[in-house]
Amino acid sequence: MKGSDSSRVGSDAGTGSPIGIVSGAGSLPFAVADAAARHNRHPVLFALRGCANAEKVASYPHHWIGLGQINLLCRLAQREHCADLVFIGSVVRPTLSQLRLDLGALALLPRVVGMFRGGDNHLLSGVADFLEHRGFRLLGAHEVAPEILMPEGPIGRRRPSESQRVDIGLGLALLRAIGQFDVGQAAVVAEGHVLAVEAAEGTDEMLAQLASLRQKGRIRSSGGVLVKAPKLAQDRRIDLPTIGPQTVLGAARAGLAGIAVVAGGTIVAEAERLRQTAEREHMFVVGLAEERPGP
Amino acid sequence: MKGSDSSRVGSDAGTGSPIGIVSGAGSLPFAVADAAARHNRHPVLFALRGCANAEKVASYPHHWIGLGQINLLCRLAQREHCADLVFIGSVVRPTLSQLRLDLGALALLPRVVGMFRGGDNHLLSGVADFLEHRGFRLLGAHEVAPEILMPEGPIGRRRPSESQRVDIGLGLALLRAIGQFDVGQAAVVAEGHVLAVEAAEGTDEMLAQLASLRQKGRIRSSGGVLVKAPKLAQDRRIDLPTIGPQTVLGAARAGLAGIAVVAGGTIVAEAERLRQTAEREHMFVVGLAEERPGP
Repeated sequence: MKGSDSSRVGSDAGTGSPIGIVSGAGSLPFAVADAAARHNRHPVLFALRGCANAEKVASYPHHWIGLGQINLLCRLAQREHCADLVFIGSVVRPTLSQLRLDLGALALLPRVVGMFRGGDNHLLSGVADFLEHRGFRLLGAHEVAPEILMPEGPIGRRRPSESQRVDIGLGLALLRAIGQFDVGQAAVVAEGHVLAVEAAEGTDEMLAQLASLRQKGRIRSSGGVLVKAPKLAQDRRIDLPTIGPQTVLGAARAGLAGIAVVAGGTIVAEAERLRQTAEREHMFVVGLAEERPGP
Repeated sequence: MKGSDSSRVGSDAGTGSPIGIVSGAGSLPFAVADAAARHNRHPVLFALRGCANAEKVASYPHHWIGLGQINLLCRLAQREHCADLVFIGSVVRPTLSQLRLDLGALALLPRVVGMFRGGDNHLLSGVADFLEHRGFRLLGAHEVAPEILMPEGPIGRRRPSESQRVDIGLGLALLRAIGQFDVGQAAVVAEGHVLAVEAAEGTDEMLAQLASLRQKGRIRSSGGVLVKAPKLAQDRRIDLPTIGPQTVLGAARAGLAGIAVVAGGTIVAEAERLRQTAEREHMFVVGLAEERPGP
């Protein structure tokens, strides 16, 4: 998969041409912009007001847009000759009154509210369809910057034990079983027991709840593994599972022993800081070879 | 199913003979004791210290035992000629230092820690096996007191709408898909989206978290349905899903529109108070005809 992505970056993904990066919060938009530049593309940030880091945005060619201003995004992107768009970074869900909806967004309402996150493939695909209908090509951040994807094997020195590998297998099987329901991308398994299944709360919140249950002595099993995998029906251009240093910290606070994600199907934010955090917290972080469904 | 249970109560379930009711917290142990007496059995409570309601226990023939005192339970039950045992009521999980483990319990350690609850069929079956090996028969509370089971159809006046029925179907399908993983008995679905899947946290905690996510504006869909169903592999003698007035309150706080459970496969605590609470909170509570797996 990485092979074909990389070749796409080098071939039909528009070497030398501008690329629009619709930027939410966190460090990923800048990592993607830098990677795009390394791959000889000219990044233009469409920074989401109230989400993107203003100080960092300032050092890139950029425009500010409000969440929900889809027509404005289309106009600005056309003016900048950005035929390709990437959506990246997290978005704190706004209240409806905070949203500045323009006509394009109104056409999508209420789908636009959960545009970036929220476990809704259907909705995200709606946004993708809308933009493609307007002549844009939507690329996954991993297509523009394959280096942000989780590699196969461990990050850092630790590796899962045999019994932890069994827990990982159980977690993957569970995620596969619920993949058709467009629900969470993550589960926690410890000693053969499923401790948590992610749904609307998101990974960070799920881990925080688990930490609280552990503190109250309500969890019997010790250790445990956070398993993340892309959903079956997921549009990988818009919504890949992501881990970062705060995921490692959250998992450590929940008393887990490590994190296992699907290699090539998971974005890693701040890989080096993640590695350091994992070492300090004595956690393993491992990328699993992706199982392809049979023919 | 109710028919065959009732006939069992009347025939081989030991009419007139004593029955031991191992009693945790809540009102259910007394409901079961009263029902057993109505069915011409002589209830003896083995009240779990720190769990069972002492004031109410006092009005029944009873012995107090500590959680983990399985040998003591066996001795007392033999002395009282209780060949049949029922486990009922919730157990606040003790810390290991609070547990007074006797020799019988040590044989089961660490399985005994989660004896009553905690989503572990395997473990619960282990306790059942242990007691049956010692010559006892373990009965489900619903076998002794079929009147505590959820009936088919609505409790109270409200019924689910067509779209809520679709959400219920989605929830049931999800629970069926994860049934093999010995995970939660409950899920929340709203407008076609799975908002929560119960695992180690339990139903009350899951609903509380959902209420908090709703308050933070992090949930897009409105309304929603709590769906509960017994696990596929569940030993129904020991661990049936339960709802009570506090489930209705929790669901109301989470902004849900109603509760759907499998009729005949769910215990209802304080049915009349549950009905009143549902009416006051404008919620529906409905028992679904159980789908039997095909031949």
